[in-house]
Amino acid sequence: MKKWRHRCFVHLDPSAWSLGGLSPINRFLTTAIVFSVVIAILDSEPLINQRWGVGMAVVEKFLGVVFIVEYLVRAWVCVESHAYQDGWRGRLRYLRSPTALIDLLALSPMLLTFIGNEAYIFRLFRMLRILRLARLGRFSSSLQLLTEAVSSRRYELGMSVMLTGFLLLVSSTVLYVVEGGTQPEAFGSIPRTMWWAIVTLTTVGYGDAYPITVIGRICAGMTAVAGIGVIAMPTGILASAFSDTLQRHRHEHVHEEHH
Amino acid sequence: MKKWRHRCFVHLDPSAWSLGGLSPINRFLTTAIVFSVVIAILDSEPLINQRWGVGMAVVEKFLGVVFIVEYLVRAWVCVESHAYQDGWRGRLRYLRSPTALIDLLALSPMLLTFIGNEAYIFRLFRMLRILRLARLGRFSSSLQLLTEAVSSRRYELGMSVMLTGFLLLVSSTVLYVVEGGTQPEAFGSIPRTMWWAIVTLTTVGYGDAYPITVIGRICAGMTAVAGIGVIAMPTGILASAFSDTLQRHRHEHVHEEHH
Amino acid sequence: MKKWRHRCFVHLDPSAWSLGGLSPINRFLTTAIVFSVVIAILDSEPLINQRWGVGMAVVEKFLGVVFIVEYLVRAWVCVESHAYQDGWRGRLRYLRSPTALIDLLALSPMLLTFIGNEAYIFRLFRMLRILRLARLGRFSSSLQLLTEAVSSRRYELGMSVMLTGFLLLVSSTVLYVVEGGTQPEAFGSIPRTMWWAIVTLTTVGYGDAYPITVIGRICAGMTAVAGIGVIAMPTGILASAFSDTLQRHRHEHVHEEHH
Amino acid sequence: MKKWRHRCFVHLDPSAWSLGGLSPINRFLTTAIVFSVVIAILDSEPLINQRWGVGMAVVEKFLGVVFIVEYLVRAWVCVESHAYQDGWRGRLRYLRSPTALIDLLALSPMLLTFIGNEAYIFRLFRMLRILRLARLGRFSSSLQLLTEAVSSRRYELGMSVMLTGFLLLVSSTVLYVVEGGTQPEAFGSIPRTMWWAIVTLTTVGYGDAYPITVIGRICAGMTAVAGIGVIAMPTGILASAFSDTLQRHRHEHVHEEHH
Repeated sequence: MKKWRHRCFVHLDPSAWSLGGLSPINRFLTTAIVFSVVIAILDSEPLINQRWGVGMAVVEKFLGVVFIVEYLVRAWVCVESHAYQDGWRGRLRYLRSPTALIDLLALSPMLLTFIGNEAYIFRLFRMLRILRLARLGRFSSSLQLLTEAVSSRRYELGMSVMLTGFLLLVSSTVLYVVEGGTQPEAFGSIPRTMWWAIVTLTTVGYGDAYPITVIGRICAGMTAVAGIGVIAMPTGILASAFSDTLQRHRHEHVHEEHH
Repeated sequence: MKKWRHRCFVHLDPSAWSLGGLSPINRFLTTAIVFSVVIAILDSEPLINQRWGVGMAVVEKFLGVVFIVEYLVRAWVCVESHAYQDGWRGRLRYLRSPTALIDLLALSPMLLTFIGNEAYIFRLFRMLRILRLARLGRFSSSLQLLTEAVSSRRYELGMSVMLTGFLLLVSSTVLYVVEGGTQPEAFGSIPRTMWWAIVTLTTVGYGDAYPITVIGRICAGMTAVAGIGVIAMPTGILASAFSDTLQRHRHEHVHEEHH
Repeated sequence: MKKWRHRCFVHLDPSAWSLGGLSPINRFLTTAIVFSVVIAILDSEPLINQRWGVGMAVVEKFLGVVFIVEYLVRAWVCVESHAYQDGWRGRLRYLRSPTALIDLLALSPMLLTFIGNEAYIFRLFRMLRILRLARLGRFSSSLQLLTEAVSSRRYELGMSVMLTGFLLLVSSTVLYVVEGGTQPEAFGSIPRTMWWAIVTLTTVGYGDAYPITVIGRICAGMTAVAGIGVIAMPTGILASAFSDTLQRHRHEHVHEEHH
Repeated sequence: MKKWRHRCFVHLDPSAWSLGGLSPINRFLTTAIVFSVVIAILDSEPLINQRWGVGMAVVEKFLGVVFIVEYLVRAWVCVESHAYQDGWRGRLRYLRSPTALIDLLALSPMLLTFIGNEAYIFRLFRMLRILRLARLGRFSSSLQLLTEAVSSRRYELGMSVMLTGFLLLVSSTVLYVVEGGTQPEAFGSIPRTMWWAIVTLTTVGYGDAYPITVIGRICAGMTAVAGIGVIAMPTGILASAFSDTLQRHRHEHVHEEHH
């Protein structure tokens, strides 16, 4: 029994798998997750749902059973890991870990389907489970690099978000004052004008709302130019953060080699 | 009396508060400011104003009284600060400081309301007062870093703004010449074409004005490509500025630790 | 015979040409390639095709014969190169090299034309042949720098593409849920909403699909702000990569000079 | 006479002026240039031209005379400069220098007006003359920094422009093939589709042309994502270039101080 549990653990946990890459079972599960997400996406399209809806529902049910079995097996074998090896208490801790909770969340639509509810949107939560594989190899270290770089400048980035918010409020107020009378539908109040302001500051520019008066266009032009700063500031912060984090990583690497 | 004044000062000035974070009074005032800004924004929307206008006016009046009281108390206790400790002269200097003037500006709509005028837009000035908190902790140093980085490259940034302005003029003139005859409404004069040019150079692209002739589209395409430079140049300058400023900060830090 | 083969080789291979720049024959061939690509582009326009179609077809046929002759001559002289000098076996290896396959691909529409098929789109493949010149001088080292910088961060860039994909899925799902009922045409399913999401996240913003409900606009606003991150992250990664790669190149250069 | 010539030279040449800033005459001329450019811009607008056209024409004529006088005086005093001190030969060389040619170009519309032609667009060339002041102080060194940074990466930037052009051709061809049948007006030929492609790749997105078929949208989505690279690559190159150039400047500065 224990031997089987250990074998299951080795096949399910990417870091316990000694051969390179993913174990066959994890490769199958990853494919199944991607497959079920694609089905959830396509299933929302009426044209596709009408033709292949029945078949997709069957596949969906089958994959649901697979994921439930996987969840139970994982709960059974988790005690093989160093972090959760103290029997039932370890198992309980595992079940409350973010990984297991995401798995449960991803299963919930399945469980809800059995009791009739069609919360099929939640099926997309399964996508989150792919993050489980992020622990693997080079991708893991690059994700860590990105996270480290972003979090090392979280105050600067937060400050640039605050400046953007401030700019958003100022430009909405100004445009509301100068354009509100002419176009009450799009600029008739500050909250309405905010939609225009965010579309302009992020340089998306749908074109459903734009000023038509001369003074409104001058103010909108200045907002659009300020929008360059809204993009340039976080980009600049991130660029210097990546450059910095990478240099630090390399230094540490060199120091380790020296010792 | 002096003891009370000191206690008030400690509770009102973020840097005098020895316990971590904000004092309860400052936390209340910050919430009140945010709350009054949100009310000012929502109040501008007719649909909301019709239903909750009366209630919001009451809250607005109450908050106005709170801010007036705060202003007076701050004017009373400011002499506890090192910068303004020379009695009435210090107090006068405090009242002319940017912080106090912003406070007064933020109060002005309130005072105007009492005499009948509805300059409710000025209520948004209260938002500026939130900047008072920017002095606090990590946010303060990150704001300083941003300001330092931007101001260390102010000439380069100014030059890139001038190049953008130059590009704006050139592309407006060219498009006016090649497209003005076909679309007099949008391209019939250089000032009109400038609206198109700024919307294109900032890559906003509302779609209310765009060339339709072949030669106009070729020129517009080149303008759009130049628009990449308009975004890339300040971004590049800021990226190198942040990288540089941070490195200098770290060096200074290391030097201080060595001594 | 051998002397002629060697002379042809020297004129055809950019790296064998000892005088600066390109040999006269390569200069002619480059012009011919650019010319034939321009003709292929213009030929697709009915207005131009009607007027100059016959003339362009003649030029096209002539250039096709030139390129076929060039292909045969290259196959004949390739054995002069160090890489393919072992007679017919070397020649076969040359014919299977990417360069020769691209040449063949670029010839294919010509060959197809002779047997009646009008796969004129493939004529654009000739453009790929211009890359042959990329081996030359300063352009070669700058292309190498770009490639090296991008490939040194391929995992980080891949991760940021994955984050973008994740954001795309999340925003499509959210907008589908909140806006699908109001605008079934544009937001009636997740795949349909994805078109809106990608247009917004890349800040293109055509304006053919945008939310009109309040809650939809709030979610779309957050998506547009996240779109800044989608642009800022790869830009930051690339900026630090270029900075890094260049510094490494310079270091190597200095080391070489020291030895 | 010579004394007067020297005095004129000192007042006209920004680098010969020993007191800080600009000489009163140069300050007046700069204002006059800006003023005449603003007039040229406003004059193109019919609504303004109808009301103030006569007055502006008078001012324009007056400024034209001022600039002609300035041109002649400059030609007279140029021999005071080190570069042109060899009498008439120096004067001829000055008249063929870029600065003087720009001045002449800027005067040309004035001269043409006297002979009846209304080439008023050329009046904007006067703007170019403002560049004369770029030699001054901090702005000069920051312009030099920008130019140096851009030119130190001209091959990399050129390569990224070439990649953008390649992407433009590929996406135009693909969209022409998949969308040309459905929307012949906007996608009916490769040159037409290029307008859509450039608007998408630069993320401007006017919304006058966008694919409506499923396969067209998938290809357009990939084009839009590639558009991020089109922006990210030059931005990254410029960011590393600025960072690099500034560091080199500082090093040189430190070395100079050491000696």
